[in-house]
Amino acid sequence: MRIRVINPNTTESMTALIEASARAVAGPGTVVEAVTSGMGPASIESHYDEALAVPGILAAVAEPADGYVLACFGDPGLDAAREVASGPVVGIAEAAMHAAAMVGRGFSVVTTLSRTKGRAHDLATRYVAAGACRGVHACDIAVLDLEHDPGARKEVIDLARHALERDGSDVIVLGCAGMAEFAAAASAELGVPVVDGVAAATVLVESLVRLGLRTSVREEYAPPPPKRYTGLLADFTRS
Amino acid sequence: MRIRVINPNTTESMTALIEASARAVAGPGTVVEAVTSGMGPASIESHYDEALAVPGILAAVAEPADGYVLACFGDPGLDAAREVASGPVVGIAEAAMHAAAMVGRGFSVVTTLSRTKGRAHDLATRYVAAGACRGVHACDIAVLDLEHDPGARKEVIDLARHALERDGSDVIVLGCAGMAEFAAAASAELGVPVVDGVAAATVLVESLVRLGLRTSVREEYAPPPPKRYTGLLADFTRS
Amino acid sequence: MRIRVINPNTTESMTALIEASARAVAGPGTVVEAVTSGMGPASIESHYDEALAVPGILAAVAEPADGYVLACFGDPGLDAAREVASGPVVGIAEAAMHAAAMVGRGFSVVTTLSRTKGRAHDLATRYVAAGACRGVHACDIAVLDLEHDPGARKEVIDLARHALERDGSDVIVLGCAGMAEFAAAASAELGVPVVDGVAAATVLVESLVRLGLRTSVREEYAPPPPKRYTGLLADFTRS
Amino acid sequence: MRIRVINPNTTESMTALIEASARAVAGPGTVVEAVTSGMGPASIESHYDEALAVPGILAAVAEPADGYVLACFGDPGLDAAREVASGPVVGIAEAAMHAAAMVGRGFSVVTTLSRTKGRAHDLATRYVAAGACRGVHACDIAVLDLEHDPGARKEVIDLARHALERDGSDVIVLGCAGMAEFAAAASAELGVPVVDGVAAATVLVESLVRLGLRTSVREEYAPPPPKRYTGLLADFTRS
Amino acid sequence: MRIRVINPNTTESMTALIEASARAVAGPGTVVEAVTSGMGPASIESHYDEALAVPGILAAVAEPADGYVLACFGDPGLDAAREVASGPVVGIAEAAMHAAAMVGRGFSVVTTLSRTKGRAHDLATRYVAAGACRGVHACDIAVLDLEHDPGARKEVIDLARHALERDGSDVIVLGCAGMAEFAAAASAELGVPVVDGVAAATVLVESLVRLGLRTSVREEYAPPPPKRYTGLLADFTRS
Amino acid sequence: MRIRVINPNTTESMTALIEASARAVAGPGTVVEAVTSGMGPASIESHYDEALAVPGILAAVAEPADGYVLACFGDPGLDAAREVASGPVVGIAEAAMHAAAMVGRGFSVVTTLSRTKGRAHDLATRYVAAGACRGVHACDIAVLDLEHDPGARKEVIDLARHALERDGSDVIVLGCAGMAEFAAAASAELGVPVVDGVAAATVLVESLVRLGLRTSVREEYAPPPPKRYTGLLADFTRS
Repeated sequence: MRIRVINPNTTESMTALIEASARAVAGPGTVVEAVTSGMGPASIESHYDEALAVPGILAAVAEPADGYVLACFGDPGLDAAREVASGPVVGIAEAAMHAAAMVGRGFSVVTTLSRTKGRAHDLATRYVAAGACRGVHACDIAVLDLEHDPGARKEVIDLARHALERDGSDVIVLGCAGMAEFAAAASAELGVPVVDGVAAATVLVESLVRLGLRTSVREEYAPPPPKRYTGLLADFTRS
Repeated sequence: MRIRVINPNTTESMTALIEASARAVAGPGTVVEAVTSGMGPASIESHYDEALAVPGILAAVAEPADGYVLACFGDPGLDAAREVASGPVVGIAEAAMHAAAMVGRGFSVVTTLSRTKGRAHDLATRYVAAGACRGVHACDIAVLDLEHDPGARKEVIDLARHALERDGSDVIVLGCAGMAEFAAAASAELGVPVVDGVAAATVLVESLVRLGLRTSVREEYAPPPPKRYTGLLADFTRS
Repeated sequence: MRIRVINPNTTESMTALIEASARAVAGPGTVVEAVTSGMGPASIESHYDEALAVPGILAAVAEPADGYVLACFGDPGLDAAREVASGPVVGIAEAAMHAAAMVGRGFSVVTTLSRTKGRAHDLATRYVAAGACRGVHACDIAVLDLEHDPGARKEVIDLARHALERDGSDVIVLGCAGMAEFAAAASAELGVPVVDGVAAATVLVESLVRLGLRTSVREEYAPPPPKRYTGLLADFTRS
Repeated sequence: MRIRVINPNTTESMTALIEASARAVAGPGTVVEAVTSGMGPASIESHYDEALAVPGILAAVAEPADGYVLACFGDPGLDAAREVASGPVVGIAEAAMHAAAMVGRGFSVVTTLSRTKGRAHDLATRYVAAGACRGVHACDIAVLDLEHDPGARKEVIDLARHALERDGSDVIVLGCAGMAEFAAAASAELGVPVVDGVAAATVLVESLVRLGLRTSVREEYAPPPPKRYTGLLADFTRS
Repeated sequence: MRIRVINPNTTESMTALIEASARAVAGPGTVVEAVTSGMGPASIESHYDEALAVPGILAAVAEPADGYVLACFGDPGLDAAREVASGPVVGIAEAAMHAAAMVGRGFSVVTTLSRTKGRAHDLATRYVAAGACRGVHACDIAVLDLEHDPGARKEVIDLARHALERDGSDVIVLGCAGMAEFAAAASAELGVPVVDGVAAATVLVESLVRLGLRTSVREEYAPPPPKRYTGLLADFTRS
Repeated sequence: MRIRVINPNTTESMTALIEASARAVAGPGTVVEAVTSGMGPASIESHYDEALAVPGILAAVAEPADGYVLACFGDPGLDAAREVASGPVVGIAEAAMHAAAMVGRGFSVVTTLSRTKGRAHDLATRYVAAGACRGVHACDIAVLDLEHDPGARKEVIDLARHALERDGSDVIVLGCAGMAEFAAAASAELGVPVVDGVAAATVLVESLVRLGLRTSVREEYAPPPPKRYTGLLADFTRS
């Protein structure tokens, strides 16, 4: 089985981290194919960035695979990707939240910038039952600094500890693909499950493939009606 | 006051319709500036179309104005537009739903293709109180056929009549900018308020401007952090 | 266009404030007609006051106008007024919350007495989407003291600042018609949109009139069945 | 124990029916004191009627008693009555819905005029858990005709049968005090619990009295701040 | 009328307390028959305990009575008991929450161990309207220590005071049958209604009996289809 | 990895079906260990059956394994099992609903007896986002007849087709472990994803194991406090 793991930003070093997370959990027969978006923002930290990451994602899901992972915690373009991809598509926020819901009573999300908290709340409303997400907390470290900031791991873990107390939660969801490498240490220190979305999405999309489940083509997610695209985006025309 | 009314698809004839709707209700001192998106799909009938309409919208809101209307009923890119526009931004679904909520107890949406019903439901959840939107109904006429199909008006009105009965609603929201010209006839025939989103958004954004209200810049809608954009979308870099 | 702005309490000085707020934002061709309720409580600070303000409101909306504003933040008698008024009716809580929803992600309400917080929460549930109202805070200054208490403005602004932090909100809604004159200063100090309901309701009801929208007469808001009224309220008989 | 059962409309014959319902279930030591409102509408069939029934209710709850029943299915003035009554106050919609929730999984309400369905839905949202009220159905018989219309009983029972099927409910709530005498026959014919609000409110308010529970005076339901009332309603001044 | 009050744990001294609470409020003609479960855990402090208390409860409700009270705040086995009991069945959390909803705007629950807070939240979601339960707080005293710990009463009352402040609530619900004897003192000290579920359930089930209401037998709560039971539980076979 | 798949009823032939479903999707290194409950009902078709299936389930999860599947669509005893099992526990309704949510916009559940529809709705409320479950439909075939009734497959598929139309859904969830073998045929005929819970739970619990995620032991799901069990259930004492 071939799983295409898409880094929706254009930063190669982050693709490498994502690929490592995915490979660490993929099943024996699974080929993980990590790709960097070919256009758009270097990191995704606003609605503007997120919106402009979507064309690159849609170009990346146009390549055939058995399943797809969108490796940005805002799950940008998920609905659109489902309409055009040749296999199931799972976002990392979606996967992390579903997994968290199966190992605890309520989770807290630990994310990067404060301005992204609203998006995390919206996604929780969309994916999981009311009350499953008990809080979203920001460490205010920029996405691309997570990798280099020597204190980032400690700050993220401290924030997670605070979130567990404050929210009365029992599971932590890491709200950025760039936090993947903190998951094991955080779980060991905090004594609760800590969910990295990249790993979760990888095994969940594998699961869907193994179950023979693909995105429904009844109505909403059917292939889009063909039509003319013009200007900068002319190449997105589908016939 | 200058209001920029953006047609998010690339079809000029639809821009003309939208402009007429907006001008018909704009206040005496208001300049309505209708613009057609410079890139993307000829009409918006899928998540794929909607996602790829957003870059054109973001280019259009980069031009200064006192207020902005996004004239597609999916309100594509609304959050991103708010981060970068120089004045308040109102989507036509948003405006129509707020207006409908003030003149009745519950509205039904009459839209184009069945596949877009989910999006209308999602927007209702986002904009208005639980229960305000009592149903979404599709006439299954394509967006660009609304203008030319001689039977479209009758089909839309018949569907609206059915929706009022079925949903126990008392207001109709027209779920496509291309239905604007049916509003008056529908209201006369059905005896209930019929809300066209383009007109509603025009007067509501004027209202916000008159109230001196602009999008909050506290956290989520603050200007996006500057960063490098590459590839096809390099021109979207903001410094 | 003639807009009747009704002060539901019997205090003339408060009507003057309300009138000033409405006139400051009304469009060029709009006549603002501010009226003081002819019966009932001197201010509205309990469910008892609110219930007994309604007969005066219903007497006031019996006079013809193009649109009506109910200028008490509890929006007393709104449903009943809609059944009998000759044009659209907008409450100031309703208008403020709809406007706030279009310029931010989540608002906090700053109100007068603690005992009125429940009503504000109920109205938010009725008017806007789940999560749009993130908190209601009381300054515990009585309605009629707002005008005279020299420290009121500062207390209200300090409370609003606290609310933004505590609730993670990005817009402030002023929860009393008597706070209208604090709006501009509060917005300047806090750096977020601050919505005064009287101004908001004035422009929103003008918008509805301009859109040709009146309260639906299908079922719930149809004119009430005529019937005999007796006792003190005999004059409310409608034939 | 003395329970004051208030008929919020001014029709004496209806008070007699209500009194009979209440007496049929009251405990041995309970004195049921049925009173007819001294002012306002002859029956309550609109928001206008409901609003104008409230002053009469507030006059009636000013008389001391151990507990109070508001015998109109719209529960008009319940919050205001709680602020001023000397004992617990229970509305008949409130009581019926709580009782229904304890004997089944989901109830349907059978009411009089279509225009009142919205109010019943609002009350269900206020009183019981999401999903407990599965539907509201109107027989379109006016309140004062229930007593005299020879076919009313059959129509109400037929509508209830339809409601059980349509809603998948297992309990019927009668949505008007005037339907009280149909309860036993309806239950026998339909084979499900049928709840009359007058009877339910009588035993529930007795229960609260027996438990020593009175309306909380912490914040919202504390006695209203004293203030001047003027005009027609001057007598409602509380010192 | 004979009401069977079932202590779902196997501790006789707790049954005595429960019996006293029930008898203190039961009506003159009511026989309270308190029974101790014949099998299972000595106290109920986990989902495991709760699940294993259910067989004992089902054995106890197999004995005929006019009504039944399940005297554990988790309301274990309530749905199953309703299918097989010969009269209405009320849980003490259910009764306490319904009663609390009729005497205030929002209640806080004060419970024993932190690990049971989730269950209390779930029950509130099931029984009462959204927002009625404003918080659940744990004193972390084990169920069987409530009776003997000399400081328990003070700790529970202090926690209730904190809950009122923190949650902005106006009623306290005691979240354990073992706290029944603290209700009067807590109410006196705190100045708000304090609801003991055992007392509440006793009068509410009496109310249902007096109203002639029994659990609906339409669909979900109809007697279970007869079938073979084997092993340890063979005696639960119903024919 | 060893996954224990527990049939909560005592019918061996159904265990064989369940085992086949699980094995068909389990990964190469996974040992599926299917077990039949040692006590309780022959099939689960009521709350009574479900409650009395739980002791057998708790005995079965006391045996060590890497993960556990509860193979009855009511997910009986899931919370209690999580407290005592040595690895993650997944219910088949839970798994089916999470999987369905990732491949479509809204699913319908097709179940056995009408009386179980309420339970399916409750589980949907617990597991997935509001609106994800669009309807629950019963074929009214008893659980143990699914295997033998030659027309069962056709009836189930016809009902699913009706559900898709009626609910506007795009995915079918099979609401009984005994329907597993209809999944492939149903999907082929209906052209939408059809989710069998046994298969879904098997791959999802494998996923959790692969991710290193176990049920959180923070508060609610921590091991239950040890205590004395008596009577028939004395063997359930945990020390």
